[in-house]
Amino acid sequence: MPAHWSELDLIKRFTGSCRIDKKQLIKGIGDDCAVLHPAGDEAWVLTTDMLVDTVHFDTSWHPAFELGRKCLAVNLSDIAAMGATPHSVMLSVALPDTVEADWLEQWLQGLASMIDEFNCALIGGDTVRGAQLTISITALGTIAKNRVILRSTAGPGETIFVSGYLGSAAAGLLLCRDKATLPAADEQLAAPFIKRHLDPSPDVFCGSLLARSGLVTAMQDLSDGLATDLAHIAEQSHLAAIVDAQRLPGHPDLAQVCRLLERSPIDLQVAGGDDYHLVFTVKRGAEQELVDYLARHDGPPIYKIGRTEPGSGVHLLHGGESTDIAFRGFQHHGND
Amino acid sequence: MPAHWSELDLIKRFTGSCRIDKKQLIKGIGDDCAVLHPAGDEAWVLTTDMLVDTVHFDTSWHPAFELGRKCLAVNLSDIAAMGATPHSVMLSVALPDTVEADWLEQWLQGLASMIDEFNCALIGGDTVRGAQLTISITALGTIAKNRVILRSTAGPGETIFVSGYLGSAAAGLLLCRDKATLPAADEQLAAPFIKRHLDPSPDVFCGSLLARSGLVTAMQDLSDGLATDLAHIAEQSHLAAIVDAQRLPGHPDLAQVCRLLERSPIDLQVAGGDDYHLVFTVKRGAEQELVDYLARHDGPPIYKIGRTEPGSGVHLLHGGESTDIAFRGFQHHGND
Repeated sequence: MPAHWSELDLIKRFTGSCRIDKKQLIKGIGDDCAVLHPAGDEAWVLTTDMLVDTVHFDTSWHPAFELGRKCLAVNLSDIAAMGATPHSVMLSVALPDTVEADWLEQWLQGLASMIDEFNCALIGGDTVRGAQLTISITALGTIAKNRVILRSTAGPGETIFVSGYLGSAAAGLLLCRDKATLPAADEQLAAPFIKRHLDPSPDVFCGSLLARSGLVTAMQDLSDGLATDLAHIAEQSHLAAIVDAQRLPGHPDLAQVCRLLERSPIDLQVAGGDDYHLVFTVKRGAEQELVDYLARHDGPPIYKIGRTEPGSGVHLLHGGESTDIAFRGFQHHGND
Repeated sequence: MPAHWSELDLIKRFTGSCRIDKKQLIKGIGDDCAVLHPAGDEAWVLTTDMLVDTVHFDTSWHPAFELGRKCLAVNLSDIAAMGATPHSVMLSVALPDTVEADWLEQWLQGLASMIDEFNCALIGGDTVRGAQLTISITALGTIAKNRVILRSTAGPGETIFVSGYLGSAAAGLLLCRDKATLPAADEQLAAPFIKRHLDPSPDVFCGSLLARSGLVTAMQDLSDGLATDLAHIAEQSHLAAIVDAQRLPGHPDLAQVCRLLERSPIDLQVAGGDDYHLVFTVKRGAEQELVDYLARHDGPPIYKIGRTEPGSGVHLLHGGESTDIAFRGFQHHGND
């Protein structure tokens, strides 16, 4: 990519040159998924992601089976963020000559296990040769048209929640890089964090419940870190998100693991990517109603982390100070 | 790709391990597009292709604008082969640091011109870094549910047609490789062939007319060459395709260009890829009706090249001999 384009999102830049008004198109570029309304009461959501070896994953520590699962999890998390249910998947792969048959079998089995787990169908794809292992997946989901949850529809004075622990995958990534030097006694401690990095489970059931509750106003998945992902909701809904650092949920062992890693837990919780939970806003006064709704439907625990108010940015309240952290997450975990 | 997997289509191999029966899914893997039936009388078709620098194209002679157009044309041709009308597009690109901004601008403008020409919307995508320029496009189209044309529904005793000249793009590819050594006097002769290779126009209007005629029984686009593409119809419809070499349509200057290239026109017409016309079968006794229908609707000329009969394979009648040419095309033009 040309150096001075580095901060651009090529796809967004490109939008300006193409028509975006289109029959049967509810939402184009700018959310977790595009939303189509073919007919009747149902909407279809579509998302696509491209993952490149050494940029988005490292096959030297990422087992093939788990990587196959994660390649799809990334897309299913986008579908969950619309409140939709996964339906089908298209898979394109560029394979170098050096990929071994055993590795490929394991990778395919991992992908198939995730496809089955979420009751999807593989409906098409393309296999080509390339110098670098590159995986492009497009996933489709369905949802009642009047239940779709966008990023742009939060209001001021609402509460902000997340659907799971923050920072676990980021800690897991650091542990994977350091794994060789990890004392045996620490391996058990590290396991859940490494698992979250290698094989995250998308919050599809939770996203669907939240949409059906009718109480959630805006939603987005946590792929690039809270500071970046919540900034999309703030920006598109034209408001400020106020996050209370003391409320950020973390795995009970996060502090201990962070001591091992010599990192601050809060940094990982705010800027760490790849957790694949959901961040969402809840209608004013509906907090308890939502908690009760989730409890009645065997939903997962959710964690209140802050509120919205008129303004802009994502503001972290920590130790009596407020810092604007919007878009300070890392965009991709990369090899940095 | 592991050497002993070289003849496999990974995606098809993978199908066995995944469920394929699914509500609202009319056709999964195995045709030009997957076919979904969300609701009402309309079907949605989806196709995806991945193109890799030095494998599927060569930026040293392929101008960026034309390459941008061709990246989408490849997908729109698959949509045309179902009889459908293009609706929207998702674009993922892996960009190396060496790609220049000017090149990228030109490429995007080419892609945008093709998107506009076929009245599509760009609805999503992903931009990532990679060592090798890799482009993955997923395109969606719509069609009345009862008009979708598959590969598997041809019957015996039907006539086989193509929607345009064969072998032009293959001749154009050879000319591009030899361009430096082409005498100036031959450049005008070469121009339409080079154009067909660099900037093919998908037969979207023709495919849609053929579907609406109700007279076409099976269809497929010509991307890998007649011998390969027609073999898919023969195989999936469980019949033999008999092709008369004397009837294969070619550009009026094909013979002259082939002398220049020291190649046989018929080889290029049978095995040459990238023409992006359509090959299709027509209901028994409906030939004249179809020709009249196309004439009434300003359709393009079509060319009868053979017939179907009970049996299997693709048989070329040439100089009093019959040769089975099924799947003898080249799969991708590559750098061979």
